[in-house]
Amino acid sequence: MIRYGASISLDGFAAGPGQGRENPLGVGGMQLHGWMRELAVWREKAGVGEGGAENASAKVLEAAGANLGAYVMGRNMFGGGPGPWGDDPWNGWWGENPPFHLPVFVVTHHPRPPLECDGGTTFTFVTEGPEVAVALAREASGDGDVMIGGGATVARQCLEAGLVDELTFDLVPVLLGAGVRLFDGTRLPIELEQTSVVEAPGVTHLTYRVMRRS
Amino acid sequence: MIRYGASISLDGFAAGPGQGRENPLGVGGMQLHGWMRELAVWREKAGVGEGGAENASAKVLEAAGANLGAYVMGRNMFGGGPGPWGDDPWNGWWGENPPFHLPVFVVTHHPRPPLECDGGTTFTFVTEGPEVAVALAREASGDGDVMIGGGATVARQCLEAGLVDELTFDLVPVLLGAGVRLFDGTRLPIELEQTSVVEAPGVTHLTYRVMRRS
Repeated sequence: MIRYGASISLDGFAAGPGQGRENPLGVGGMQLHGWMRELAVWREKAGVGEGGAENASAKVLEAAGANLGAYVMGRNMFGGGPGPWGDDPWNGWWGENPPFHLPVFVVTHHPRPPLECDGGTTFTFVTEGPEVAVALAREASGDGDVMIGGGATVARQCLEAGLVDELTFDLVPVLLGAGVRLFDGTRLPIELEQTSVVEAPGVTHLTYRVMRRS
Repeated sequence: MIRYGASISLDGFAAGPGQGRENPLGVGGMQLHGWMRELAVWREKAGVGEGGAENASAKVLEAAGANLGAYVMGRNMFGGGPGPWGDDPWNGWWGENPPFHLPVFVVTHHPRPPLECDGGTTFTFVTEGPEVAVALAREASGDGDVMIGGGATVARQCLEAGLVDELTFDLVPVLLGAGVRLFDGTRLPIELEQTSVVEAPGVTHLTYRVMRRS
């Protein structure tokens, strides 16, 4: 199964305005992930320390990670910034031990050799577009699911191509007022069925099954 | 308390494109209210017949209506269409016995005498803007709440003016792709706290307390 998951603001933004290396989620965008950073399960996975919250969100996050085999993400989500990688490319936001622990396929216009990190995360850079990245991820994932982690542009391309089976939104009661919308007014060839709603502190987790419209 | 409630699509539209007298909710907009039209409590209130569904949405709708004293709505929600009322103004979409059964204050640029309907609904036309309409509704409501029913333009003006205490969204798993957004990218001087989430067939009811940002 191919899944797409995103934290979004109540006014529909998956990131704030002015994204870049200094501000990967744009102005105000960090608020979208506050619910996650507080969780014990996330802190452990990200290696940022003991403790943290146990709540309904933790169960959602654990269930989401249970059957994952690979990730697809856009270049901004890997490491942001415009232009090619350059002679001394940096290794993204995620540090030496990224929290994915699985193969990650990064959609980019700029070729680059694969990057192996500690903890089982490997970044493979795909220049042939999101459909190829999803196909490679599906192959790498074995029986597991593929998670399209973002950003919104890659996700929208996958939705337009009818590649996504399930959507999960972590709806955060924040109004960003500007930024990157997943649903930017494009007509998508899909219909949705609401399959799960989980209320948690400061966030609502919404899951939808995607049906391709005939 | 001043409340605003709206059915919105998952891509953030409170109405589809091309609203007018022939199509009050715009193309596809009727889908946003399907969950409501099926309910027994709505069918009874709207006088459209016996029967209908009893589910979690019915409880939400009954609770929302329990302490209401007056409504505020925009001119499109009353009766749509551009231009002044004319010599023979029609009486809106709502028929001889509108489902409000309370005083309704309609924000419009075009003066018109009040309209009394069967069943206790009176429409009062207010040309001085949403703030005056809300003030009049508050006076008329006694101890009851004021519900801002829409459309999105009037609701946004009330949010910008800091008049709204509670937001309720009935989030429908439909993608309209175009239409009228409540949150059109305007920065609003408010913060929100998620206070209630109710999962129901084909809709999620989300309630937020509005705090004015200092």
